[in-house]
Amino acid sequence: MRICRVAIDGRPSWGRVDEDVIHLLHGSPLDGEHTPTGATVPLTGAVFLPPVVPPVFYAVGLNYKRHAAHALSTGYASAVPDRPEVGYRANNALTGHGAPIVKPAGVEGRFEAEGEVVAVIGRPLRRASYAEAQESIFGWTIGNDVSARAWQHRDRSFWRSKNSDTFKPMGPWIETDVDPLAQTTTVRVNSDVRAEFPTGDMIFDPYEYIVETTKYITMNPGDVLWMGADSLCQLEPGDTVDIEISGIGVLSNPVHAE
Amino acid sequence: MRICRVAIDGRPSWGRVDEDVIHLLHGSPLDGEHTPTGATVPLTGAVFLPPVVPPVFYAVGLNYKRHAAHALSTGYASAVPDRPEVGYRANNALTGHGAPIVKPAGVEGRFEAEGEVVAVIGRPLRRASYAEAQESIFGWTIGNDVSARAWQHRDRSFWRSKNSDTFKPMGPWIETDVDPLAQTTTVRVNSDVRAEFPTGDMIFDPYEYIVETTKYITMNPGDVLWMGADSLCQLEPGDTVDIEISGIGVLSNPVHAE
Repeated sequence: MRICRVAIDGRPSWGRVDEDVIHLLHGSPLDGEHTPTGATVPLTGAVFLPPVVPPVFYAVGLNYKRHAAHALSTGYASAVPDRPEVGYRANNALTGHGAPIVKPAGVEGRFEAEGEVVAVIGRPLRRASYAEAQESIFGWTIGNDVSARAWQHRDRSFWRSKNSDTFKPMGPWIETDVDPLAQTTTVRVNSDVRAEFPTGDMIFDPYEYIVETTKYITMNPGDVLWMGADSLCQLEPGDTVDIEISGIGVLSNPVHAE
Repeated sequence: MRICRVAIDGRPSWGRVDEDVIHLLHGSPLDGEHTPTGATVPLTGAVFLPPVVPPVFYAVGLNYKRHAAHALSTGYASAVPDRPEVGYRANNALTGHGAPIVKPAGVEGRFEAEGEVVAVIGRPLRRASYAEAQESIFGWTIGNDVSARAWQHRDRSFWRSKNSDTFKPMGPWIETDVDPLAQTTTVRVNSDVRAEFPTGDMIFDPYEYIVETTKYITMNPGDVLWMGADSLCQLEPGDTVDIEISGIGVLSNPVHAE
């Protein structure tokens, strides 16, 4: 099942994607209670919103072997993570499939896409076992962890380097029936393949992150966990960046200059 | 005006505090639309919830001159901030006035309270001037940025050191009519005064943070901005910690062992 959120007359509505049609829903699929309203909109031309606005927005940093090796070699990181420790991103930065990524006027240096698979939590979790973590997942979506690298290296936190408005495209929908660890992630810029890697080639998998996090922290329905990227792909205003994860879909966003 | 959230039969309700009574409200004061339901509950015995669940939970690190000097002298920080750069905390950690702070079983080393004044944003803001930042404030509350110091120093992020469940008491209410920069913050542990400092003795004030943040980031109604602490106060299970800010109120929480 593919669950999305779309803007209808400027208001958010949940929807279920069925081939080229979106069936609008009453209620939230995350609460378990939802029924079709009977109304539909065509998939083509739909205004996609982030498929969920998370109570807490978790994100993993270095979590792909090749990315970690790159970070070590460039001096950005001093060690490969030996424990699954989450970080955070901020909801203001979320934007939907098809909406522009706006490059702020003051950005210097590399401005990069990071294609990530995203776990959407479906039930409250504390002190979860690995099996409970697996059962807790509502579904999977795609995130682009857009990063302004000079700010990331210079600032005291990731506030503007990773959380400026529009820096966190997410979507296009949540796929509830897929094993993300068996998929392939492909990043295209203007249709050129810039990166392609096994989605599951992680240092720690999503369930290991959930087990460790919930030793101290209650995770809740709608929380998202962005799982990190293998590759960094330079973006310029005028580009369109597509993140495809097989079995889930394609998250596509144009890049605009401020 | 003092706006709170309380649990009524297990459900959250907005309220307005009037001396020793809470008038329950229909609608959200943050949306500008609220009317009394006609029902009241006594202030004594009310079950306080965090007065707002923020869309984004901003927090300032080193922002008091004495705290910054302490951090420099202990090697925890290598420089005093020269720009107002926000960080983040996570909503799972929020708890209300009166609720226990639970010290996890695995915490070693210092387990400390940090008494902070908290700005609650009242309107959408982007590229705010200083005057617009001042006008954007819905009101002010109190936060306790409970920190497990060994985890803070050792982990890659603040995930469990500052965001474990119950580590972010906030409340008891939002005071809409106060100048926080003219107040005094007092931290008491079991009624002993452990810290007392001018609330306004900040390196950068709340409005300077909002001006800088909104150059890149849209702040929204209900967002909170925790303004940092002057002093660190050790907590042990069995203690009760009170953060008082004159003109706002007292946030009081007992400390329990897991």
